[in-house]
Amino acid sequence: MTAATGAPDDARRCVALPDPFPMRCGVSLPGARVAYETWGRLNGARDNAVLLFTGLSPSAHACASPEDAAPGWWEDIVGPGRAIDTHRHFVICVNSLGSCFGSTGPASQKSGTGQRWGLDFPELAIEDIARAGRETLAALGLERLAAVIGPSLGAMSALAFVAQFPGIARRLVVVSGTAAASPVAIALRSVQREAILRDPEWLGGRYLPDQPPRTGMRLARKIGTITYRSALEWNARFGRARLAAGPAPARANAFAPEFEIEAYLEAQAERFVRAFDPNCYLYLSRAMDRFQLADHAGADGLSAIFSRADLERALVIGVETDGLFTIDEQARLAAALERAGVATTFARLHSPQGHDAFLVDTDAFDPVLRRFFS
Amino acid sequence: MTAATGAPDDARRCVALPDPFPMRCGVSLPGARVAYETWGRLNGARDNAVLLFTGLSPSAHACASPEDAAPGWWEDIVGPGRAIDTHRHFVICVNSLGSCFGSTGPASQKSGTGQRWGLDFPELAIEDIARAGRETLAALGLERLAAVIGPSLGAMSALAFVAQFPGIARRLVVVSGTAAASPVAIALRSVQREAILRDPEWLGGRYLPDQPPRTGMRLARKIGTITYRSALEWNARFGRARLAAGPAPARANAFAPEFEIEAYLEAQAERFVRAFDPNCYLYLSRAMDRFQLADHAGADGLSAIFSRADLERALVIGVETDGLFTIDEQARLAAALERAGVATTFARLHSPQGHDAFLVDTDAFDPVLRRFFS
Repeated sequence: MTAATGAPDDARRCVALPDPFPMRCGVSLPGARVAYETWGRLNGARDNAVLLFTGLSPSAHACASPEDAAPGWWEDIVGPGRAIDTHRHFVICVNSLGSCFGSTGPASQKSGTGQRWGLDFPELAIEDIARAGRETLAALGLERLAAVIGPSLGAMSALAFVAQFPGIARRLVVVSGTAAASPVAIALRSVQREAILRDPEWLGGRYLPDQPPRTGMRLARKIGTITYRSALEWNARFGRARLAAGPAPARANAFAPEFEIEAYLEAQAERFVRAFDPNCYLYLSRAMDRFQLADHAGADGLSAIFSRADLERALVIGVETDGLFTIDEQARLAAALERAGVATTFARLHSPQGHDAFLVDTDAFDPVLRRFFS
Repeated sequence: MTAATGAPDDARRCVALPDPFPMRCGVSLPGARVAYETWGRLNGARDNAVLLFTGLSPSAHACASPEDAAPGWWEDIVGPGRAIDTHRHFVICVNSLGSCFGSTGPASQKSGTGQRWGLDFPELAIEDIARAGRETLAALGLERLAAVIGPSLGAMSALAFVAQFPGIARRLVVVSGTAAASPVAIALRSVQREAILRDPEWLGGRYLPDQPPRTGMRLARKIGTITYRSALEWNARFGRARLAAGPAPARANAFAPEFEIEAYLEAQAERFVRAFDPNCYLYLSRAMDRFQLADHAGADGLSAIFSRADLERALVIGVETDGLFTIDEQARLAAALERAGVATTFARLHSPQGHDAFLVDTDAFDPVLRRFFS
């Protein structure tokens, strides 16, 4: 297991996972690796490391660095002087196992073959993503974490991490997460996957990288975009504004976009088609449905997991307008942590921006995270 | 303009619209008709007629009758002794112009050709549906209505009716309606339409009746089903219950339905594919996006419309868990009616069943409607 160096213009590093890597479904994954980035430095006491898991679609590039100056997916929160201060913390962000930004997943070459994994990739669980994060730490020689943190799917991964590897993280931060997906969230993801699965271009998962199932991915992302934000935000931001475009005959057909909100969805969808692999999307999406933190508990419930985890403190943050990972789900997590005797802060934010608020509403998230990490 | 008689085993009647029928887009529709059903009898004073517009997908069959014993789409609300009592009222329900249950729409034969209208059907507006309702009344010799009422799209039609034809209806009932769709509702419908438009089986709208774009219709209905109900209901009804079906290898693929909520969506989708025409869906869906009651008002706003309408009373009902036609939208309608001096009842219901509550939560809707109609 070695930490290899990426291209000079790339901040990404890779860790080879134990070969084969045992997955939760019982199958072992050969030749797998995890991509990660780091910021800041490990201190002499080796007690300032923060492990950051990501949502469904980001890479390990959480913020800019000398090696990669492009803004990261959590640029406003992670960095020098920011809420998760890389002057004080050594931050490690991992690209989820099963994703397509350097970590092994359905879009990766199956080792020893010229082919991509596709649907031959073993069933993926959130627990596997957490375990791959754990192995990344081991490769870096880290035995303790100041904190493990993640938003959305990343929050599930952080929860799976403390459930499987008690005693490593001193603190847990759950951002817009849940102990188990609600039926509405499962329903929405089921429809998103169906859009991809039924796209003729999906070809049973054997599409070429440059010929992905565009329609399915567009629909999946548009559904996602609608459910990631909130009505409150869109009423103010878009209302019923029309596009400046010409009259109907000039449009592709009578049903072409004519409201600004439709053009916004278009832009989001087109960006996503170019950025993310459809099979990886399917695997990560289903893993979110199946995750149940309670699988790691006995009849004594979630608080037994948190008692075992030996956490000093926890922070649970949620947003009242989030319909996908609701504030009630976060409230239940916070209550379970408190029952376990963990000093817990529960932050119920009034952001209008729904599930995506952690990405865009820095004013709401920054002070809460800053206080917890300082 | 004549009222023709349907088949003996069918309660459906048809009215031929003025030929050609002028549509709001400026095009005239030749040879058009509207399907309707009636229950109860017109009294001697000819003042007990109630015009009922429907939501997007129902037919004119609102409740059972001797001619058609099948339960109707509003069976629990309309009928002898029910909230809208057909012992006391003469109820007329019209199938929306543009729909596919006897009224002329994109699925109808273009008169004088062997072909279906398809995308040659003129742009449809909610105002056209209201006007077709007005012509149905004229064909029945009705000049006054005790009430005009509709839920969802039907509420838009009822609003367009009072805006265009002031002085006909004495009372207005808006059920889970809006004066104009919100950006979230537009976004959801835009994605539903895209699922149909991009289904290769749609064939630019020239699919055969028995070979509709099934995938697109399935996806559209699943998105609809999710947004018609509420998280509150599904948490209680489905939770995270798994299907009893066999293990993964026995399923069609690794992403086949495995939660009960997914099987529920499946059943809804399959029923809809068999029941509704895709082009009709596209036209009615887009008409909902475009409808703006304010188009009928000057700078003086909606209340001017209601002042002109000469209404004696109004009832506006909404459900707090409705994310598609929100309670705030209904509150604004009620406020505009009050500003216009109309005696208005605003009923804010606590049903857990979201937009569809008017179809399923009879306990909540019955007393409010019963009080208003008695």
